[in-house]
Amino acid sequence: MKNFMGRNFLLTNETAKVLYHRYAEQLPIIDYHCHVSPKEIAEDRQIANITELWLGGDHYKWRAMRSCGVSEKFITGDASDYDKFLAYAKIMPSLIGNPLYHWTHLELKRFFGITDILSESTADAIWQTTAEMLAEPAFSVRSLITRSRVELLCTTDDPADSLEYHKMLASDDSFPTKVLPAFRPDKAFNINKAGLAAYYERLGAAAGIPVTDLDSLKEALGRRIDFFDSMGCRTADHGLDEYPFYVKPNPYASNEALRTALASDGRDVTVEQLCLLKSEMLAFLAGEYAKRGWVMQLHMGVARNTNTVMYGKLGPDTGFDTIGQMSVPAILSLLDAMESGAGLPRTILYSVNPTDNAAIGTVLGAFQTSGDGFPKVMQGSAWWFNDSIDGMRAQMKQLANLSAFGKFLGMLTDSRSFTSYPRHEYFRRILCDLIGTWVEDGLYPFEPEDLATLVCDICYNNTKNFFRFEV
Amino acid sequence: MKNFMGRNFLLTNETAKVLYHRYAEQLPIIDYHCHVSPKEIAEDRQIANITELWLGGDHYKWRAMRSCGVSEKFITGDASDYDKFLAYAKIMPSLIGNPLYHWTHLELKRFFGITDILSESTADAIWQTTAEMLAEPAFSVRSLITRSRVELLCTTDDPADSLEYHKMLASDDSFPTKVLPAFRPDKAFNINKAGLAAYYERLGAAAGIPVTDLDSLKEALGRRIDFFDSMGCRTADHGLDEYPFYVKPNPYASNEALRTALASDGRDVTVEQLCLLKSEMLAFLAGEYAKRGWVMQLHMGVARNTNTVMYGKLGPDTGFDTIGQMSVPAILSLLDAMESGAGLPRTILYSVNPTDNAAIGTVLGAFQTSGDGFPKVMQGSAWWFNDSIDGMRAQMKQLANLSAFGKFLGMLTDSRSFTSYPRHEYFRRILCDLIGTWVEDGLYPFEPEDLATLVCDICYNNTKNFFRFEV
Amino acid sequence: MKNFMGRNFLLTNETAKVLYHRYAEQLPIIDYHCHVSPKEIAEDRQIANITELWLGGDHYKWRAMRSCGVSEKFITGDASDYDKFLAYAKIMPSLIGNPLYHWTHLELKRFFGITDILSESTADAIWQTTAEMLAEPAFSVRSLITRSRVELLCTTDDPADSLEYHKMLASDDSFPTKVLPAFRPDKAFNINKAGLAAYYERLGAAAGIPVTDLDSLKEALGRRIDFFDSMGCRTADHGLDEYPFYVKPNPYASNEALRTALASDGRDVTVEQLCLLKSEMLAFLAGEYAKRGWVMQLHMGVARNTNTVMYGKLGPDTGFDTIGQMSVPAILSLLDAMESGAGLPRTILYSVNPTDNAAIGTVLGAFQTSGDGFPKVMQGSAWWFNDSIDGMRAQMKQLANLSAFGKFLGMLTDSRSFTSYPRHEYFRRILCDLIGTWVEDGLYPFEPEDLATLVCDICYNNTKNFFRFEV
Repeated sequence: MKNFMGRNFLLTNETAKVLYHRYAEQLPIIDYHCHVSPKEIAEDRQIANITELWLGGDHYKWRAMRSCGVSEKFITGDASDYDKFLAYAKIMPSLIGNPLYHWTHLELKRFFGITDILSESTADAIWQTTAEMLAEPAFSVRSLITRSRVELLCTTDDPADSLEYHKMLASDDSFPTKVLPAFRPDKAFNINKAGLAAYYERLGAAAGIPVTDLDSLKEALGRRIDFFDSMGCRTADHGLDEYPFYVKPNPYASNEALRTALASDGRDVTVEQLCLLKSEMLAFLAGEYAKRGWVMQLHMGVARNTNTVMYGKLGPDTGFDTIGQMSVPAILSLLDAMESGAGLPRTILYSVNPTDNAAIGTVLGAFQTSGDGFPKVMQGSAWWFNDSIDGMRAQMKQLANLSAFGKFLGMLTDSRSFTSYPRHEYFRRILCDLIGTWVEDGLYPFEPEDLATLVCDICYNNTKNFFRFEV
Repeated sequence: MKNFMGRNFLLTNETAKVLYHRYAEQLPIIDYHCHVSPKEIAEDRQIANITELWLGGDHYKWRAMRSCGVSEKFITGDASDYDKFLAYAKIMPSLIGNPLYHWTHLELKRFFGITDILSESTADAIWQTTAEMLAEPAFSVRSLITRSRVELLCTTDDPADSLEYHKMLASDDSFPTKVLPAFRPDKAFNINKAGLAAYYERLGAAAGIPVTDLDSLKEALGRRIDFFDSMGCRTADHGLDEYPFYVKPNPYASNEALRTALASDGRDVTVEQLCLLKSEMLAFLAGEYAKRGWVMQLHMGVARNTNTVMYGKLGPDTGFDTIGQMSVPAILSLLDAMESGAGLPRTILYSVNPTDNAAIGTVLGAFQTSGDGFPKVMQGSAWWFNDSIDGMRAQMKQLANLSAFGKFLGMLTDSRSFTSYPRHEYFRRILCDLIGTWVEDGLYPFEPEDLATLVCDICYNNTKNFFRFEV
Repeated sequence: MKNFMGRNFLLTNETAKVLYHRYAEQLPIIDYHCHVSPKEIAEDRQIANITELWLGGDHYKWRAMRSCGVSEKFITGDASDYDKFLAYAKIMPSLIGNPLYHWTHLELKRFFGITDILSESTADAIWQTTAEMLAEPAFSVRSLITRSRVELLCTTDDPADSLEYHKMLASDDSFPTKVLPAFRPDKAFNINKAGLAAYYERLGAAAGIPVTDLDSLKEALGRRIDFFDSMGCRTADHGLDEYPFYVKPNPYASNEALRTALASDGRDVTVEQLCLLKSEMLAFLAGEYAKRGWVMQLHMGVARNTNTVMYGKLGPDTGFDTIGQMSVPAILSLLDAMESGAGLPRTILYSVNPTDNAAIGTVLGAFQTSGDGFPKVMQGSAWWFNDSIDGMRAQMKQLANLSAFGKFLGMLTDSRSFTSYPRHEYFRRILCDLIGTWVEDGLYPFEPEDLATLVCDICYNNTKNFFRFEV
């Protein structure tokens, strides 16, 4: 029997162990997609206790607690931080087989040096120990990042954002990690939701041009892309959710849709109009990204805010999203329209539905027209609900079967937390084990240098080169 | 090489063996969803021979025989029982890798003590041996149940049913197994099929109120729910098949749909009207179940009676159903309507399409609002076509990745047979092996008490508590 | 650590090794579905070099090269054959985990005796060695086929084809491999594409009857089926792609659709009309195949020519197809219409989307009405993008779980290449390993004769008998 999460956690053979401990373990991290707050980094916030760290906004853990029948009082309610932590500790044994179980213990070990198993009986001691440590400077937000060897990270930012904290960080030599913005313009296309006019007001103010129709929307976003680019931004990100139902772009009708939206505060917009505007804008923006050498990330297949009652109480991003359905024909049409139109930039596709892995693995291959030594379209690592041992293995094997695994871009945290970086360790162990197993089983030759290159490429170099990051 | 189906069948490591032999093996069975006949239990029927036992109504075996090109004469036709059994024995070698192969040999071993491999050459001896044993009292229906340590079972019953056999059994102290009804009102919603008026007549007679419109249908079903409840019923079950295409409830239009159905004997009912009525009634019934603390089971994703020619000859449930398509948006809308409306009871979701496992695993999490120490929505164990080693493992791993596996409700037979209980053994071995493997691989700590609790909870306690069964 | 692709490549236990080396390895090959050129066989073409052999038309390799960012110049462009081969050699390390990696090294080993790993540094030597060998008579097309122990192969042929090369081959005693045509009438139904009239002209000329409407189309195809049958043809093949959206056959409306197509050169045909005509013709042809005892192959779930720009440059079958979506309800309706109508022949279903495996496994079972000792409907082996270790294992396990694995038809290459036969070796090793693992794990009894029969049936006998091939 192996020790629980010991030195060779997830490494089942000698080749895997060598690949991990000699190469993967030491590599720096480029976390190219996450949701941490640039403000908290700029201000080098100190975290009060482990509940604030773990349960302040982590809807993975909230969802797990609810699944065990924990009352909302101990999740998002008014229970004390101590009692919330205790409630989380109590459910741990039920989380056997869940990535949260491993993340929890990896974080305890890597950041706090705690090797105890979290449970009702150990919760109090862990609470005390972590509280003392979190008060130390070595546990400030910046320290957590640098101790994790994060060389570069990309936040997620609205086009209307001033990026003031990114500016502060860029001019602060004392913090070695590069913090870049990423361009996420989803709000600009939500023409069926209330508040569009107010948002366009903000966007227009940031861009220095009033947004009143399709042309001015494009102009404003183009100016913000230039501004983001000047701030070092290398990537844009779109949450397509259960869209895309691709509709052939039609600027005239799109403009009409947008005017209807502004006139009715979103109320009179049809689903067709929404899809029309999104298709139009996605094709336009793809061209803008391509021109600047940016990477476009498309996140698909999510059904959001599915529980109306809880949405009313807690709002979005609180643990009530689910896997939805992606449309393969729609994503094919969208990519084809970009390729035929203003340009298809380097692109990363993610679907939260693992049944799409196979289709995506082949969609990539139909748009690999760069000829520049890099793939043009890649699949992102196993996303969100798939960020588990089984999910990551399945995604990697599928990608290897269907595409060129040596070009894979590896891991990102997609997280709101400053202690989520051990997920890179989790990924790297699984990666090294997969490669090691192929080699030990005689499915790939034992050529140590090639294997080392492969591991370093997937964990680090490919991302650096694909995004053209300067680190 | 391990012995074929020996003592450690499916148990690949020491922890798995200890968990199974020390805990899981001895636990009683709660078979919370099956299709056995309460009449046959009440009358303690004696089974004539192994063909009657195995091939009398088991469409799994019929399907397997047809897949090997066996003539219908030896399946549902007029061949002798002996020749039918011989025909089944002959196809055994072709069933390598099929759960039927294991079920067959587990049943031979556990009930008859036969360890021979069934084949053409052993068929005659097995026929003789089993025929002699089946004539003994130790092989009556009740004996088969009690020898299997079944503590409680739920049959599947129509709302119009008098439950007379359940009454007999409830008042019979000589039979220790609790036999409870389950409420399955599917027929009340089939407004597009002939025979609705006749069915409503029966339902109305049972409920003591004529069923002529939406209100009286609700009233009649409500009264029958009360009656079932008084008979100890704790659960309702719905076969949504390829429905739900959720339609926002509308009592007025639903009532119109129902009147159209009654006036035209189902002929003039549109698909929209069918969905409308089903949505209306499901939302209503969910509230009724919630009020009484019942568990609602939703079975989804089946395409039924797909072969018109064979349906004409043999009718339903004869082996011509297939995996169909479940709609994730529809089930989300349905659950949300219940949660926002009259109430969402404790619910179990099953889809026969294994590609839905991932989506379902996340749908659960979006409706976990009980706060009472139990999850509110659970996924049922791998259903029907998925009731195989691979299918059960996949469902369990997916559930563990996406939800709280410690709260899982474990196994049910869903069977028409009185010798299907070894499927619980099959499940428990796979479960213990999965947990044991996690532990031995260092993915979960070796804490013997926690592990014992986990196994007992999943095999027995969780079901007892979730359904609030009194045993 | 096992040697890279050594003698026991993919064989992980003793039973697997015995089954493979004692039985599977020696069996002849029946390649019942492929795309090699009968002309090249008839003329016994000599291949110029390894680029012509491997990169002349293999869109699997083209796709892999593009995925590594190789310029089109080295794929379909005007670079020299040597430089193209070098470009392919360079990407090999990125193809870890891809079946191409194994196919490449199996072909080097089996045909050329080369055991070096292909890479940039070995490319030149391999180029030289293979060039010399390819110039020898032992490397002519016929030699490659006979050295691979191919007993029979079926090409893929248009109904309008004269089959002249098949005639030549049939009358040539010097070549022991049987080369049979297969009937692929897809072009006759593409009523929404330009060129239909010209095609019908050719078809009519071949059949000796002008094709001007539905009846004459049926008559012409019927005559060509007779002709193909007289040439030994035993099978027809249909590429349903993302069709079928089944529409109830209606001869009158189908005839109208066809006339519209001819009058407008495909321009005025609606999607509904296309589906209508396809449904009509598929149901008709199924009856014709059934009458003659042919096997009908249905290939589903492909999205073709998805990249408009590249389609304009390179045309079809150049690596821009992807996995699409199959409709389970549609295929059920189609099979049911055949079964209820003119007849459902022995049928093989393939979907390129692996998420359809489970549904297909159950669809089979609903149409098993032969009663003649063979199944009527079978699933084909893992197709195209699924032709990998993981893909083949998944398909075989799913089939075993859901149907009668002992009746499986085994492997086919679906290839345009004369050195693709080692894919049968690849398949047979995976098959023997799967069976061996079941036996060694105690999931199936160790009965050596039964196991030998099973392996020989799946690798060879089942195909011979299902198609009624005379070899």
